[in-house]
Amino acid sequence: MALEDGQSIFHKPSAISHDWVTISPMAVFGGVFSVLPTPFTSSGDIDPESLTRVIDLFLGDGVDGFTALGVTSEVARLTEAERDRVLDTVVSHVHGRVPVVAGTTAEGLRTCVAYTRRAKAAGAAAAMISPPRMPKINSDAVAKHFAEVASAIDLPIIVQDYPPISGYAMEPALVARIARDVPAARTIKLEDPPTPFKTSRILEQTNGLDVRIFGGLGGVFLLEELMAGAAGAMTGFAFPAILVQIVALFRAGRIDEAADVFYRKVPLMRFEFQEGIGMAIRKEVLRRRGAIADAGIRAPGGRLDDQTLLALDRVLDWTVLKSEV
Amino acid sequence: MALEDGQSIFHKPSAISHDWVTISPMAVFGGVFSVLPTPFTSSGDIDPESLTRVIDLFLGDGVDGFTALGVTSEVARLTEAERDRVLDTVVSHVHGRVPVVAGTTAEGLRTCVAYTRRAKAAGAAAAMISPPRMPKINSDAVAKHFAEVASAIDLPIIVQDYPPISGYAMEPALVARIARDVPAARTIKLEDPPTPFKTSRILEQTNGLDVRIFGGLGGVFLLEELMAGAAGAMTGFAFPAILVQIVALFRAGRIDEAADVFYRKVPLMRFEFQEGIGMAIRKEVLRRRGAIADAGIRAPGGRLDDQTLLALDRVLDWTVLKSEV
Amino acid sequence: MALEDGQSIFHKPSAISHDWVTISPMAVFGGVFSVLPTPFTSSGDIDPESLTRVIDLFLGDGVDGFTALGVTSEVARLTEAERDRVLDTVVSHVHGRVPVVAGTTAEGLRTCVAYTRRAKAAGAAAAMISPPRMPKINSDAVAKHFAEVASAIDLPIIVQDYPPISGYAMEPALVARIARDVPAARTIKLEDPPTPFKTSRILEQTNGLDVRIFGGLGGVFLLEELMAGAAGAMTGFAFPAILVQIVALFRAGRIDEAADVFYRKVPLMRFEFQEGIGMAIRKEVLRRRGAIADAGIRAPGGRLDDQTLLALDRVLDWTVLKSEV
Amino acid sequence: MALEDGQSIFHKPSAISHDWVTISPMAVFGGVFSVLPTPFTSSGDIDPESLTRVIDLFLGDGVDGFTALGVTSEVARLTEAERDRVLDTVVSHVHGRVPVVAGTTAEGLRTCVAYTRRAKAAGAAAAMISPPRMPKINSDAVAKHFAEVASAIDLPIIVQDYPPISGYAMEPALVARIARDVPAARTIKLEDPPTPFKTSRILEQTNGLDVRIFGGLGGVFLLEELMAGAAGAMTGFAFPAILVQIVALFRAGRIDEAADVFYRKVPLMRFEFQEGIGMAIRKEVLRRRGAIADAGIRAPGGRLDDQTLLALDRVLDWTVLKSEV
Repeated sequence: MALEDGQSIFHKPSAISHDWVTISPMAVFGGVFSVLPTPFTSSGDIDPESLTRVIDLFLGDGVDGFTALGVTSEVARLTEAERDRVLDTVVSHVHGRVPVVAGTTAEGLRTCVAYTRRAKAAGAAAAMISPPRMPKINSDAVAKHFAEVASAIDLPIIVQDYPPISGYAMEPALVARIARDVPAARTIKLEDPPTPFKTSRILEQTNGLDVRIFGGLGGVFLLEELMAGAAGAMTGFAFPAILVQIVALFRAGRIDEAADVFYRKVPLMRFEFQEGIGMAIRKEVLRRRGAIADAGIRAPGGRLDDQTLLALDRVLDWTVLKSEV
Repeated sequence: MALEDGQSIFHKPSAISHDWVTISPMAVFGGVFSVLPTPFTSSGDIDPESLTRVIDLFLGDGVDGFTALGVTSEVARLTEAERDRVLDTVVSHVHGRVPVVAGTTAEGLRTCVAYTRRAKAAGAAAAMISPPRMPKINSDAVAKHFAEVASAIDLPIIVQDYPPISGYAMEPALVARIARDVPAARTIKLEDPPTPFKTSRILEQTNGLDVRIFGGLGGVFLLEELMAGAAGAMTGFAFPAILVQIVALFRAGRIDEAADVFYRKVPLMRFEFQEGIGMAIRKEVLRRRGAIADAGIRAPGGRLDDQTLLALDRVLDWTVLKSEV
Repeated sequence: MALEDGQSIFHKPSAISHDWVTISPMAVFGGVFSVLPTPFTSSGDIDPESLTRVIDLFLGDGVDGFTALGVTSEVARLTEAERDRVLDTVVSHVHGRVPVVAGTTAEGLRTCVAYTRRAKAAGAAAAMISPPRMPKINSDAVAKHFAEVASAIDLPIIVQDYPPISGYAMEPALVARIARDVPAARTIKLEDPPTPFKTSRILEQTNGLDVRIFGGLGGVFLLEELMAGAAGAMTGFAFPAILVQIVALFRAGRIDEAADVFYRKVPLMRFEFQEGIGMAIRKEVLRRRGAIADAGIRAPGGRLDDQTLLALDRVLDWTVLKSEV
Repeated sequence: MALEDGQSIFHKPSAISHDWVTISPMAVFGGVFSVLPTPFTSSGDIDPESLTRVIDLFLGDGVDGFTALGVTSEVARLTEAERDRVLDTVVSHVHGRVPVVAGTTAEGLRTCVAYTRRAKAAGAAAAMISPPRMPKINSDAVAKHFAEVASAIDLPIIVQDYPPISGYAMEPALVARIARDVPAARTIKLEDPPTPFKTSRILEQTNGLDVRIFGGLGGVFLLEELMAGAAGAMTGFAFPAILVQIVALFRAGRIDEAADVFYRKVPLMRFEFQEGIGMAIRKEVLRRRGAIADAGIRAPGGRLDDQTLLALDRVLDWTVLKSEV
């Protein structure tokens, strides 16, 4: 078992098989996909060396895939050239060991299609797409958006249901409608709480379809999402080995053990996933794990204060030293 | 230690002194104030017997005070006659053993003043007030609202900083300005995340004033709020004994122990405090604790499904059986 | 007084029949319904004398009905006793000459039902109801809310589609679903722009049902709403004679004349209907029309400044003196 | 008088001097700046020929400047390469005849600085910048954003106060603080209603500074904004000659005439400026004016229906034929 000693969250867990991941135009996705941060140098430029170290660290943690250019990647603060550079770095460094998902959300359909084409050309296994931000958005417009991207590019789509991106909350019936109408868009990154409850509602309404739901939100409801039928987690939590272990135990039918690990680690997940400063905390943790050189996030972004750092010290110490399985 | 056995969260912890609570027009508040649910009968009427049982249970848990007519009390779904009935029931049943705070938020200043007068007349020790909901709200309007309530009634005000109520997020500088300008309004129920970080910012800007900050949000960041200088917690978490124990240990300088209890119990707090279904979960827990007869909430409100109940079983079992200090 | 001639906005237009209004449990509504302000004395109490003068003035203007306890009535700043007092004053003073609609929106179903019962008992011809404000609201919850109110009370419901009340925008398909499923709720007060466009969409989707749509929003799109099939206007515009004239001309097939009146008067409607200060402008106009004694609105509400009053003088003068048909 | 005949709104008004525009690092701006649409071909590509025809048309209308890459330019639906192409086309075609403002809003400071640098390099006279979209935004973060852009590039900044872009409403005190602290950012495009009222509040609080406020919002409150002290209008209204005429009359002290033109034309401005379909209406008008080949907007965007086109026909006809001064 991976987390058998006090230092374990800083090291690679024993290998966990993920042969079940199949990449194809209608690929099914599951397990633990880490959303990668975008590390910057102290002068604010992209730091590809740190990025590749994060990839190595997370591969060592046993992740089943990566997601680049997500919210926690600070994608909204990257230029297009930087987007390309980040995605190329990730795909080439991962080198096919696990699939790479690329965020390609854009306000316009045409830009979304262009980003998705670039993602496919760069070697991404899927595109993660949120409804577009638009005035007077509605369910027909959202459904059409996914259908049109799918008809333009032959690449699996992961529907990102995180209302802060677009300002629009998709009802379960809309997510189910998209899954029925757009076969390429049957994987969902579900981040509209209560996520376990919504997972159940979507799966009820897509009975018979191979719909896959990833939890997100820092892993804070991973156990309950799995209990409701989720296929895994796609999030930026800085210790993916923990998520990997929980998912593996759960899939092996060892639910009590999965729950025990989850409950002991969720205090850390909760702390990391704070509104407004979550990205900064994640980068600080990855700096401490030796992966990234500078924990800075791009302006305007929340900065950590001393109290937050002290509280981080405390929750990290406890998670490592006091929460053995 | 209160929670030394598997059943402990269902029983009263060893007594904790709260002599430090002083009720006066400029009272300072702190410790653990439980926001009371409003129990209903199966036909939807107010159930005062269940309400008094919750009070007894929570007094047994060692709380320092109560808050009636808060968000978790479903105050927005009560008529005015029901508001009065709830508050009268609470004040008369508590009978001075601990202070009772009454929510008196209203969209209009005049109604807010009227509610606050009724609260004082009913025997409340303070009024909890959020900025009013209004189109084109701004910081001057908010500051003026608190000043005018304070000038109309001689009763301490607890400023509720929970943006979903009013649709307006108060900046730390505005909370500090209210504290400086309105001596009656120097206690804050802070529920705008990241709450530990914001607690630090407000305390920095009110240096020298006796400002008291309560955490809320189900206790999910209680430890970090206390580390940042919070005076306690005011929330509806259904096991206030846990909060009482954490605050007591923290105040006694036994921070490591406080943290250990907190980390072991926060998985439950997190589960209970789910957006959209949190009130329903709390009532279900209180039904299981034997306090309330019917766990129903008023329509339109989230209903629990089987998966949520199974997940609740699991997290309750673990919290009781597996999380000894 | 600037407005002593150019008569039309101060006097009743040539008589317009409104025999077509039928009040019954399944009544159809249309024409011009004035949403009544709630006048206050200078000390902030309800001023029933001013209210009855507004009713007389608007009856003189030829309105087809009244709506009490709407947004422009400052209903959110009234206590329940004040709600009752206002509604009783309106119903008794109108004395059956035209139908009276009562706003009965509430966050809880039970309170909404209680308000609607009181409205019926007081003599209201219909209840105007917005979706309730609730966390994680969705289309099923909204549809159920209307169905449950309708099943509890035998009174026509006017569905108010004004997203700022509930924070939720109903799609045309949801409004149409409610109309199909709840026969009592086939009249809509449509205030989600673009309103003419949405009017067309709803009528397309309710083909064959006797759905009635009222425009609102101060009348600023009345002509285009009528062209799209609206049945009239329900708004608080302080010169309802203008709306009456436009609707009458339109119904008589004299579209060019209706449009000409509309275009000449819409500069005033636009000015009056300003976000944040619209209620204050309306009351100031009604004060100038001699109907209300004090133009004050309840705190916290926008106050008019000198520039706004000067601009009001100007647009009133122009509308009266320079825009004769 | 410019609009003396039925065709006048399709032609250039009599010449109006705008020598008063001075372009310098601390330039003051005023008068009528047209926000340019981005025309597309029927296949959705940028159509530079149509764009240059719009420029010629608007120069003929007498505008004092242009703004490219604004909201009505569908900037959110352009790639970066398209942004560059549009701006280069505009600057080179305008060729110094009037100043060109470039929208450079971005979620990250660094991207905003990069866009602003490109704008300056391309020949823009100023950058129009909205507060960035960010979680937990506050006034300090906004003030810092403008200060940092200004310290990085020596180019005038037009502060865009249009809350839908960032989800954040700047209070007058914040706009005034930015004007005091950042001399380059003393021009405001004010689009947070009620705009005349807010114009007065900002000017009160920046007494003694050369602060310039442009109205926007389609010109729908231009007269009242000018009365409150605004320096002009910056908007995408498809008949800028009308705005030019109003501003010229107002500046010449011929207020009654300015008002008369305004009131006769505002029905058209109002119609054009409809939420959700305003951009589509503007393009349709410009197609009819012979400037753009295809009125399409990029998906997902509102499409006009037949009723809207009929209503447009009507309001255009009336504005041309029936609204002589």
